[in-house]
Amino acid sequence: MMLPFESYSPTRLIMSPEAQLQSGAQIVQHGGSRVLIHFGGGSVIRSGLLETVRASLTDSGLSFVELGGVKPNPRAALVYEGIELCKREKIDYVLAVGGGSVLDSAKAIAIGACYEGDFWDLFGRGITPKQRLGLGTIITLPATGSEASNSSVIKNDELDIKRGLRSDLNRPDFSLINPKLTYTLSPWQIACGASDIMSHVMERYFTPTEGVGLTDRLCEAVLKTVIDETPAALADRKQYDVQANLFWSSTVAHIGWLGMGRAEDWSAHALEHELSGHYDTAHGAGLAALYPAWLTHILAKDDKTAIRISQFSERVLGVPLDFADPRKTAEAGIQRLSQIYRSWGLPANLEELGIPHEDLPRLAKLAKKRPDGFAGSFCPLNEADFLAIYELAWNWQ
Amino acid sequence: MMLPFESYSPTRLIMSPEAQLQSGAQIVQHGGSRVLIHFGGGSVIRSGLLETVRASLTDSGLSFVELGGVKPNPRAALVYEGIELCKREKIDYVLAVGGGSVLDSAKAIAIGACYEGDFWDLFGRGITPKQRLGLGTIITLPATGSEASNSSVIKNDELDIKRGLRSDLNRPDFSLINPKLTYTLSPWQIACGASDIMSHVMERYFTPTEGVGLTDRLCEAVLKTVIDETPAALADRKQYDVQANLFWSSTVAHIGWLGMGRAEDWSAHALEHELSGHYDTAHGAGLAALYPAWLTHILAKDDKTAIRISQFSERVLGVPLDFADPRKTAEAGIQRLSQIYRSWGLPANLEELGIPHEDLPRLAKLAKKRPDGFAGSFCPLNEADFLAIYELAWNWQ
Repeated sequence: MMLPFESYSPTRLIMSPEAQLQSGAQIVQHGGSRVLIHFGGGSVIRSGLLETVRASLTDSGLSFVELGGVKPNPRAALVYEGIELCKREKIDYVLAVGGGSVLDSAKAIAIGACYEGDFWDLFGRGITPKQRLGLGTIITLPATGSEASNSSVIKNDELDIKRGLRSDLNRPDFSLINPKLTYTLSPWQIACGASDIMSHVMERYFTPTEGVGLTDRLCEAVLKTVIDETPAALADRKQYDVQANLFWSSTVAHIGWLGMGRAEDWSAHALEHELSGHYDTAHGAGLAALYPAWLTHILAKDDKTAIRISQFSERVLGVPLDFADPRKTAEAGIQRLSQIYRSWGLPANLEELGIPHEDLPRLAKLAKKRPDGFAGSFCPLNEADFLAIYELAWNWQ
Repeated sequence: MMLPFESYSPTRLIMSPEAQLQSGAQIVQHGGSRVLIHFGGGSVIRSGLLETVRASLTDSGLSFVELGGVKPNPRAALVYEGIELCKREKIDYVLAVGGGSVLDSAKAIAIGACYEGDFWDLFGRGITPKQRLGLGTIITLPATGSEASNSSVIKNDELDIKRGLRSDLNRPDFSLINPKLTYTLSPWQIACGASDIMSHVMERYFTPTEGVGLTDRLCEAVLKTVIDETPAALADRKQYDVQANLFWSSTVAHIGWLGMGRAEDWSAHALEHELSGHYDTAHGAGLAALYPAWLTHILAKDDKTAIRISQFSERVLGVPLDFADPRKTAEAGIQRLSQIYRSWGLPANLEELGIPHEDLPRLAKLAKKRPDGFAGSFCPLNEADFLAIYELAWNWQ
């Protein structure tokens, strides 16, 4: 039966070829006056985006300070620095300019600046945040869906762990999306982003909940779009519509709409977060190397998974249904999924990703212990299952 | 090219088998204190829903007054009465309990109560509203999508016209959706609702905009779901999942998500509003009798429409693609669409709907003059086209 649900997606999402020009006006409209501009490395400087944003804020009569330096798998240390800066400079609005890591870091700063204690209490320690500073974003990478999601994931180097916070406070007031900002991305970034989008949908698609025909089909719509558009994006990144469809797919994939009334299963995400948490693996690359192994393992472990994996194979991947043995459809689908990832230039297995084979038992133990993001609702897994999936993914051909 | 767009859907949508029990708590959470409960006829009294809502409000410490009597194709006269009541009783929150007509009436009251002049100025006279009272809904019919849309449509008997207002202010603070409330609907109400949902999607699907692959597929997902679920709902209306999928389809169809970046074409809606405006035709029944004629006319008038109508026929209706002549696929699809409406018990033509044949020229003139809702972006139409479509729909077999 469809589960009771609440759908809440208040972020004002603006997609246009000049979206970034609205940043000052949007902050004013949402009550901001003194802004922290948060960004990553040099690419937003080199591209001129940061300069455009500064001009927009100045034109709107806003004052601001800046904090750059966000790395992929954003670090808690910089969040602490951002929180201190916000308090010292009496910041009331945080504007993130960059990819998902910058946005996640900005979310943690905006929430942490309104929390009296150590912000890390809010990440996996069970304390619920109550408020945040104003928060807007200019997102430059179609991948994480952080521009509208209720999620933020931060890596704590001191504790050597990566943890997430889910809260409606993580949903920005507004997000500006300009597909042209992706024209300078590398094929690797595009491919990793597409893999991340796919996984956000698949974590919702592979569910034990029955009677959810509409969200099944909405999930399939996004997956088919990503599979259609990604090769086009890799061949020529300067096509507005291709990037716009990929970008809107990434937003829709993680805004929540695709998971309404369904139990989700974030096993593969949990397995991946241990990789990127310890080896700075690109999240999307890790997911691509893990998904076929996870599906293969649960197909073997639990008969009930065959129906849904064969539905995925037939409807999303176009595998002809084997009416006599739908399990064969599912197996062929998993092979096709793996081929798709490889055709995008992503690694086929954990060995290619450079994960030391001898670390697998430790990773399995840690993944099983993750407090967040993991449910196992579609197929419950124990530590031995986790290790078997890592092994399968390490040896996958 | 995909058009620039803004997606804004702030309504908190709650679907559960007991959603109505949250009405008091939700109003308090959204800052309401003195409430107008707005409803239609006796069904919400007979079902006990109104009594449940009163108890929920009282339990939450809220005081309230009531205004019933909303008719299908809600009337301006009752909106005027509601506005006066709100001012006299110092109401700060409007709670609509009923179908789309009740919700549209409540929207007009909540907005009109904050406007100094005649509220009708806001409906098709080009004046933009600036604020409204608090607004929540308990929706009892899957059809209009009014529970989350930016739209309200009101009939003015004095002026003998039906007009709409589109504004983000029409989006409720919250909407409570309980699929079980639909168990007592008649097959006719279910069928008319399903037709209305289909049309809200088709008005977005039939677009001249290219490069919108994701929203194409999202539209197709909703259309296929409605076509799958409606026969099941007509056969047995007490199936939670069936009603839940239909209800969520109706919300998604008109919340705006399916129209992002696309030019929409509301020609068929405009043609229908003249019918329900003058003869109190059930909106969904009028749409079912008009759609096949509209599609047939534009397929003949403009070669460019064939591609999209054949895509609709193949992907949504499962018509095998005629590779040599896609136009034949389109024609077969239109026939199948008409058969689907008839299989739901809806009228095949305007004669069955009781529209006087001699009125068609007058209706065509009025439909062409509508200031709202009509674009003709997919296929521009003049008054002669309108009349031809009415004629075709009158004689449709």
